[in-house]
Amino acid sequence: MRVFQRMGEHNYEKVVFCSDEDSGLRAIIAIHDTTLGPALGGIRMLPYATEEQAFHDVLRLARGMTYKASISGLDLGGGKSVIIGDPKTDKSTELLRAMGRFIDSLGGEYIAGQDIGTNSHDMAVIRGVTKHVACVHESAGGAGDPSRTTAYGVSLGIRAVLKSTQGSDSMAGRQIAIQGLGNVGFALAQFCAEAGAELTVSEMDGPLAARAADELGAEVAGVDDIYDTECDVFSPNSIGGVVNDDTVGRLHCKAVAGGANNILAEARHGDALARSGITYAPDYLVNSGGLIRCREEVFGRPTEDFAIYSRVSQIYDQTLRVIRLAGEQSISTSAAADRIAEERIAAAG
Amino acid sequence: MRVFQRMGEHNYEKVVFCSDEDSGLRAIIAIHDTTLGPALGGIRMLPYATEEQAFHDVLRLARGMTYKASISGLDLGGGKSVIIGDPKTDKSTELLRAMGRFIDSLGGEYIAGQDIGTNSHDMAVIRGVTKHVACVHESAGGAGDPSRTTAYGVSLGIRAVLKSTQGSDSMAGRQIAIQGLGNVGFALAQFCAEAGAELTVSEMDGPLAARAADELGAEVAGVDDIYDTECDVFSPNSIGGVVNDDTVGRLHCKAVAGGANNILAEARHGDALARSGITYAPDYLVNSGGLIRCREEVFGRPTEDFAIYSRVSQIYDQTLRVIRLAGEQSISTSAAADRIAEERIAAAG
Repeated sequence: MRVFQRMGEHNYEKVVFCSDEDSGLRAIIAIHDTTLGPALGGIRMLPYATEEQAFHDVLRLARGMTYKASISGLDLGGGKSVIIGDPKTDKSTELLRAMGRFIDSLGGEYIAGQDIGTNSHDMAVIRGVTKHVACVHESAGGAGDPSRTTAYGVSLGIRAVLKSTQGSDSMAGRQIAIQGLGNVGFALAQFCAEAGAELTVSEMDGPLAARAADELGAEVAGVDDIYDTECDVFSPNSIGGVVNDDTVGRLHCKAVAGGANNILAEARHGDALARSGITYAPDYLVNSGGLIRCREEVFGRPTEDFAIYSRVSQIYDQTLRVIRLAGEQSISTSAAADRIAEERIAAAG
Repeated sequence: MRVFQRMGEHNYEKVVFCSDEDSGLRAIIAIHDTTLGPALGGIRMLPYATEEQAFHDVLRLARGMTYKASISGLDLGGGKSVIIGDPKTDKSTELLRAMGRFIDSLGGEYIAGQDIGTNSHDMAVIRGVTKHVACVHESAGGAGDPSRTTAYGVSLGIRAVLKSTQGSDSMAGRQIAIQGLGNVGFALAQFCAEAGAELTVSEMDGPLAARAADELGAEVAGVDDIYDTECDVFSPNSIGGVVNDDTVGRLHCKAVAGGANNILAEARHGDALARSGITYAPDYLVNSGGLIRCREEVFGRPTEDFAIYSRVSQIYDQTLRVIRLAGEQSISTSAAADRIAEERIAAAG
């Protein structure tokens, strides 16, 4: 494992290896870029098989946060952390507090939040030892799980691609295929249904899919059939890499806009979508609502939904701007988003 | 390179990989143990061939600082940093300031000082961006190069081994062989000469050796002959590892006490000295005067020589305590020093 070599590839500022014997904590905090502000990013806890895997994951994720904060116009940098361990068996108050002390020792340069394997209750424990944490459960005075805000932002990304592809951002009567009904996906389905969209959903968890059918009138597709669903917008909201060599030719949609991270398996799949005439709303832009909420929780006024939603609503304009730039420059929307994000950092640096 | 595996071998708390594109800085800050206080340790700048070498060096050095602070009764932990680069060609104000910002971001958990490849002028540059730095040049309001204080401490270690081996700590008429006349070695030679010792010195730099002969009446030995010099105390003050398989049988001294770090090539050479009836004053104890001075510079009252020298003078008592414990428990003095240092941390932890 070549730490500096990997850091040099994308100009990471700092990588912190944290070890605490008493609690068994082994964690890596990666800070990619703090040009725009402190690095806010979640704590992912997974039983990584090797420290190399954890290292590669945290680097990739930290850089993604830089782009997400920049494209969203936030005064935040990019960072992320990973804890090596199984959240079901290895997570303890002692371990979370040890993690909190490491976060605190960075003096606010890194601000933690929830991610896979951690939740707002865990953030409340961490809040006991450091103020540099977001997504803290409401019972501890925090703003809680930001998933609903993320979902609201994704719904605006969907409206933007509808506007761009069909001339109107109304969801009424539009066919929207939602893959995954987790905290973000289900809330998104609710927003879309309320706005009159017709939903097709897929979800591994049968009862959850049944609930969407009951409550929202959604049609339930098989977990593999969702790719073939004819629709206006395909919205992936669970795992990453779902637009790949296997699926890209199967999509029967006018646009892709979802809350999942890393929807494109590789950058070239963004080009493939463009060639197929499918408009892709960059994932890190449309799913930035949660980050916006976390930012307000840490730096903003006492949580005022109005202020947060006003900020989140800019996702609509920014998505249209990205689509316009991609058209002007004949590049993919992913490339256009990256360009806007990078130019903002370069201008501030 | 297995970062966590190496950290786990000796319970390192934190290792920070720092990279700054603009200045070309690549540095590692290692924090071994902060049970007793913030980690104070120098910045070593060397053109390490690989990042693995830098990583191994900084870990080893950081742990050494934990023991040095603990045995010296200081409220400090152990840490160290390395910058990968050639101090002659790669060191710049921009690079040092970038290093200072990384140090500052640790919020006082790590306090820097000078080491091989850096000096008190460099610390003055770093002082421009962080208060967490010692050994700052006098022109910038600091206490400057601590070498003379280190040398004073070593002279007390020599007095302690004289007391232990000969019943009196007087240097008058004692034969002392000093290897290396750098900042510490030359000052030590002055202290010893003033106290009436008869000196044999060795030094690669001919003019420096000639100066010791002129000013201090020292006899000059060849750089390899110093090991064979018959003397009361052999005092290594330059490179480490000088008590090794080649030299241990050649020493004609009653004691070894010097300012160099890692005088023993391996722990077993401490046992070999003991078997030969040679009393060894552990290096990290007798060379802790510089650390004591740096601690006072950062946390103490405005530099008062009296307060510092009073604290440094405890090296004498502590060395005798280590020798006594080694005798009582039939272990080497190195092992005895380690035990005292570890017990203090365990009691505080």
